[in-house]
Amino acid sequence: MNTFGRYLKVTTFGESHGPMMGAVLDGLPANLPIVPVVIAAELARRRPAGDAVSTSRIEPDEFQIVSGLVDGRTTGSPLTILIPNVAQNSHEYQDIADIFRPGHGDLGWYHKYGTMPGPGGGRLSGRETVARVAAGAIVKNILKEQGITIFGYTKQIGAICAEDYQREFIEQNPYRLPDRAAARQAEKLIADLRAAGDTIGGQVVIMAENVPAGWGSPIFDKLDATIGQAMFSIGAVKGVLFGDGLSLATMRGSESNDQMGPAGPLTNHAGGIVGGLSNGAPIVVTLLVKAPPSIALTQKTINTKGNPGEITIKGRHDCCLCPRIIPVAEAMLALTLFDAFLERKSA
Amino acid sequence: MNTFGRYLKVTTFGESHGPMMGAVLDGLPANLPIVPVVIAAELARRRPAGDAVSTSRIEPDEFQIVSGLVDGRTTGSPLTILIPNVAQNSHEYQDIADIFRPGHGDLGWYHKYGTMPGPGGGRLSGRETVARVAAGAIVKNILKEQGITIFGYTKQIGAICAEDYQREFIEQNPYRLPDRAAARQAEKLIADLRAAGDTIGGQVVIMAENVPAGWGSPIFDKLDATIGQAMFSIGAVKGVLFGDGLSLATMRGSESNDQMGPAGPLTNHAGGIVGGLSNGAPIVVTLLVKAPPSIALTQKTINTKGNPGEITIKGRHDCCLCPRIIPVAEAMLALTLFDAFLERKSA
Amino acid sequence: MNTFGRYLKVTTFGESHGPMMGAVLDGLPANLPIVPVVIAAELARRRPAGDAVSTSRIEPDEFQIVSGLVDGRTTGSPLTILIPNVAQNSHEYQDIADIFRPGHGDLGWYHKYGTMPGPGGGRLSGRETVARVAAGAIVKNILKEQGITIFGYTKQIGAICAEDYQREFIEQNPYRLPDRAAARQAEKLIADLRAAGDTIGGQVVIMAENVPAGWGSPIFDKLDATIGQAMFSIGAVKGVLFGDGLSLATMRGSESNDQMGPAGPLTNHAGGIVGGLSNGAPIVVTLLVKAPPSIALTQKTINTKGNPGEITIKGRHDCCLCPRIIPVAEAMLALTLFDAFLERKSA
Amino acid sequence: MNTFGRYLKVTTFGESHGPMMGAVLDGLPANLPIVPVVIAAELARRRPAGDAVSTSRIEPDEFQIVSGLVDGRTTGSPLTILIPNVAQNSHEYQDIADIFRPGHGDLGWYHKYGTMPGPGGGRLSGRETVARVAAGAIVKNILKEQGITIFGYTKQIGAICAEDYQREFIEQNPYRLPDRAAARQAEKLIADLRAAGDTIGGQVVIMAENVPAGWGSPIFDKLDATIGQAMFSIGAVKGVLFGDGLSLATMRGSESNDQMGPAGPLTNHAGGIVGGLSNGAPIVVTLLVKAPPSIALTQKTINTKGNPGEITIKGRHDCCLCPRIIPVAEAMLALTLFDAFLERKSA
Repeated sequence: MNTFGRYLKVTTFGESHGPMMGAVLDGLPANLPIVPVVIAAELARRRPAGDAVSTSRIEPDEFQIVSGLVDGRTTGSPLTILIPNVAQNSHEYQDIADIFRPGHGDLGWYHKYGTMPGPGGGRLSGRETVARVAAGAIVKNILKEQGITIFGYTKQIGAICAEDYQREFIEQNPYRLPDRAAARQAEKLIADLRAAGDTIGGQVVIMAENVPAGWGSPIFDKLDATIGQAMFSIGAVKGVLFGDGLSLATMRGSESNDQMGPAGPLTNHAGGIVGGLSNGAPIVVTLLVKAPPSIALTQKTINTKGNPGEITIKGRHDCCLCPRIIPVAEAMLALTLFDAFLERKSA
Repeated sequence: MNTFGRYLKVTTFGESHGPMMGAVLDGLPANLPIVPVVIAAELARRRPAGDAVSTSRIEPDEFQIVSGLVDGRTTGSPLTILIPNVAQNSHEYQDIADIFRPGHGDLGWYHKYGTMPGPGGGRLSGRETVARVAAGAIVKNILKEQGITIFGYTKQIGAICAEDYQREFIEQNPYRLPDRAAARQAEKLIADLRAAGDTIGGQVVIMAENVPAGWGSPIFDKLDATIGQAMFSIGAVKGVLFGDGLSLATMRGSESNDQMGPAGPLTNHAGGIVGGLSNGAPIVVTLLVKAPPSIALTQKTINTKGNPGEITIKGRHDCCLCPRIIPVAEAMLALTLFDAFLERKSA
Repeated sequence: MNTFGRYLKVTTFGESHGPMMGAVLDGLPANLPIVPVVIAAELARRRPAGDAVSTSRIEPDEFQIVSGLVDGRTTGSPLTILIPNVAQNSHEYQDIADIFRPGHGDLGWYHKYGTMPGPGGGRLSGRETVARVAAGAIVKNILKEQGITIFGYTKQIGAICAEDYQREFIEQNPYRLPDRAAARQAEKLIADLRAAGDTIGGQVVIMAENVPAGWGSPIFDKLDATIGQAMFSIGAVKGVLFGDGLSLATMRGSESNDQMGPAGPLTNHAGGIVGGLSNGAPIVVTLLVKAPPSIALTQKTINTKGNPGEITIKGRHDCCLCPRIIPVAEAMLALTLFDAFLERKSA
Repeated sequence: MNTFGRYLKVTTFGESHGPMMGAVLDGLPANLPIVPVVIAAELARRRPAGDAVSTSRIEPDEFQIVSGLVDGRTTGSPLTILIPNVAQNSHEYQDIADIFRPGHGDLGWYHKYGTMPGPGGGRLSGRETVARVAAGAIVKNILKEQGITIFGYTKQIGAICAEDYQREFIEQNPYRLPDRAAARQAEKLIADLRAAGDTIGGQVVIMAENVPAGWGSPIFDKLDATIGQAMFSIGAVKGVLFGDGLSLATMRGSESNDQMGPAGPLTNHAGGIVGGLSNGAPIVVTLLVKAPPSIALTQKTINTKGNPGEITIKGRHDCCLCPRIIPVAEAMLALTLFDAFLERKSA
């Protein structure tokens, strides 16, 4: 379904080439401040920057809040955000209307619904995430007022890994890399890929600082389980790792256990979540991001009749999703944590 | 909460040292065959084998189905399985009743509920998974009758990686490794760790073959998202990766896209799920399993009053969770896929 | 929360004096036809007719479907309907902004949310039901294509009871009475009440014909239980009765049991639902509708500070809710039945 | 499904002639006291008293709490209650195994599940409510500690109406009538019905005192809507009315509005709920209870093959459900109010 969350239910709607995208947030407590400029700022972070790494479809994302808001504060009723689509171009998709694009969900969609997802990928489009970012911006800001900071950065693009960590540099480069040298390498890599009509994968890290201990649940709704669902609900995320990630496979218990002192855990190998519950250490989650599947190279595929053929995808698409996925993943982490916060209140 | 699934709702209950564990399955269609011997076999696969790798607490797991079953078939009403606990030994836990065990959820639990989880970890114990395996065995068998096969194996224990793949060997060694040489290495590693009072992490692979295309949902309930939640709901799982996993970070779109022919995808880099929907290829998910946190070595920690101290955990615990986590993960995958199957029927 | 249904989830949003009302329908199967003129017709049935019985706030209800629809058919993605508000007049409410209106939910709202519901009752306004009627019109039409007919009529207004039953007359008079003589009496009663600044209660009957046997569930989600929730979710409904209603209190089992023959139940005392499951007979539900609480007479009340005072409500409001509640109740019955239909498909 | 509640989820299981009935309560806050003797007392109130009005199947209802309880207090984990069945007698049902009993849900069950519900009505049996009463007893007691009192009485049995109201007399007579004269009349009526092999309907009133204002929700989960669902989920309830009930149909707004003073509502025509939210006045709900359908008289019916025939139901069944439905309805009201209480905490 199209709803996320159990206490704060966020429902998104809209297709890539329809008139608008939108989100309904049901379960926001009353009297919380909504700051439109903060929402706009997050939407701007998600928006392609006009550089080589991202798509050239740039939407203004001029949103409107049409319910649930009075005098800048929530009312307790559903808050609805509408974000018009203005820059869609369906002509690019006419030639491939019945052909399954490799790496996209077209084939699965067709088997499930009996139709193609429509121009621009319809509901499957990354455009859908604009509604998540708008919804996430609201709760991210509320959490921020409680002292909880959520942010992310690119750890790896292809073979280029961030070795240095300059936090203030993250938002100063189009790759959201925290490493100046890596950013220079990435610029060249992206240019080469653009020229080749190809794309590249990578990894991003998303963090939440100052989450109190005891958020989450011990069994099926473990905090890492709900964060896991949230992250895998973002297209192109093919892996989710907490804390030290793959290194944990080769670590002994005596190495990977986070021993504790009066001030909290002495290490953070677990990434802030143990037994499904936050332990007060920063939540650290790494996302494995596959290369964008829309490439200019010719690929083998089939159409809805099962006939084989080839496809060449036109238009300019994202070359690497890492930088643009960060605000989306931050939004999903914010929504997940806010839900855990409301759950704590009711228990 | 303690319920998993949206169409088939599985609720588990019970504490490690309480009288019994149990599961209620609500949403099973009527007239499906239940085969007790199949449930018993799955419980046996989860049970410690009396070897070095696993805990020496061995429960007979003699289950009873007390509702929802008539003449060996489901009735459409909730099916309840009770599994008595008989081998618990609470004395081992008396000395550490108010001390947070590193690597366990004790601290988070205490912050959430205001009490300690109780002897043997109470509800946080791995014993809880016996109810999942029983529930999963039922649907795994129903899926099997539809031709869907679910199985798993250990890919890595510490630095030991399975290089060979002998499928029939998996269930013939206590590590569930598909590689005879690796199993021999593992035997030595486990013996050394036992001697040292330490434990080790690893990786397992879980697969589902013959899942039809079009299962799952395109947005928040993507099939990989619900599988992700299912897998992270298993204690000790700190990472979930689909298909080629980490390799996808360095792959180009032209490499990672699964091109298609009339017979299906030509490759399976994506692990059987694209755009949140199955594509007909085998579902392949890799789990990163941390080392069991109960170690015999002395560790720094604090108690419920915040006072620092040390803890040494007595008793024999699992030395590596990989082999025993496999039937649990298979059960969770079965429950997730069965839910997706029911969702397809209603749509 | 603001969502109804378990398989088809309908979320409504919007406040009486906000820019628009809306509904998101998530869970509609793909490829169902949506007929805008049918939606418009249902909205017209709900709209005040400009006569004495109803409010004089008349909205054009020019709706827009902004997602989930391609070429007149559902896509399987959330279908969103927006209905602008254009005729609101907040000035009427300025004098009573902090005074609890008797018979309205203002006091409860203030205790729950810490604020007043806002001009026109905000989210508490009957205007909210326009979104339900739009959503219900869609599924009512789909059910109609399956042969299931849903309709309603006014059974009683104050002391005036429908004695005659002319089905075709129902939609020909502003009271939706099936009895010409009663309609003439009602005209006079309403005129008198208008002159007195007062309002009146009544009863309506809602029916669904040709619902197959076996819809519903046997325990908490009994079909009468979900219909009951649906009906009580309509403001002003203070009673819900199935079949013979109050007469059942004095009937013996030998009288109230519906005996059966090969063609179905021989009587319909139960109103089409037995044991929480439909039995193939028409579903018959009677709603007790209280008098509209907005009256021109002076009433004692308190304000948000707890200070006593008086209130006189200006503007023209509905004089009797029976006729306008019928399309709303039909919509809620349609949504409930459609949910039961989808549940049957998944089981 | 078999789960009630959104914050406190109560799942019941078990069939009339199976080994046991049970309930899992998930969502109980930690550290609440559980008093077994209170649960036993409520089960005793539901148990047939060995008099003429009720069935002669008397179960000891010796329950066991097998999870979620430590040292007499909740742990925050699911609390499971098991109640063995010991007095079932399936022989009585062998002759009618494939015949639809009029007034029971057999026909609907058969259409839904493809099988008969089983001996004693299986899951459809009134025996199912024992699990509700056990679960309700827990939260009823917690609410009582908050000052909220829930109780009920019989208002009418057949044509016999309670004219007097002696609260202390309610639990002193087998009919739970608050009127000594009416109880004497009822005794004679029941004796006559027993002799005739027939049964009778009636009405009961359920009340909750001291519910704070502001519980409930304004739209679909109105407090009256969730109470309505709860009450209609009890077999034999065919009508639910709040406050003044049917009288509201003929009342003017100036009569039915509850005007307010500083101490609260000046009247309680609405039954304590306005706009879906509690207003601080006692919650008053009247249930219309149909006659028990199991009668000794011969009735026309069909079997699973659609062939017509007759049925005569053996054994002793309840003659009027009013007295025994009261503790069940109190339990359902308690569960509904507790859910609303938890919802208030999270908002």
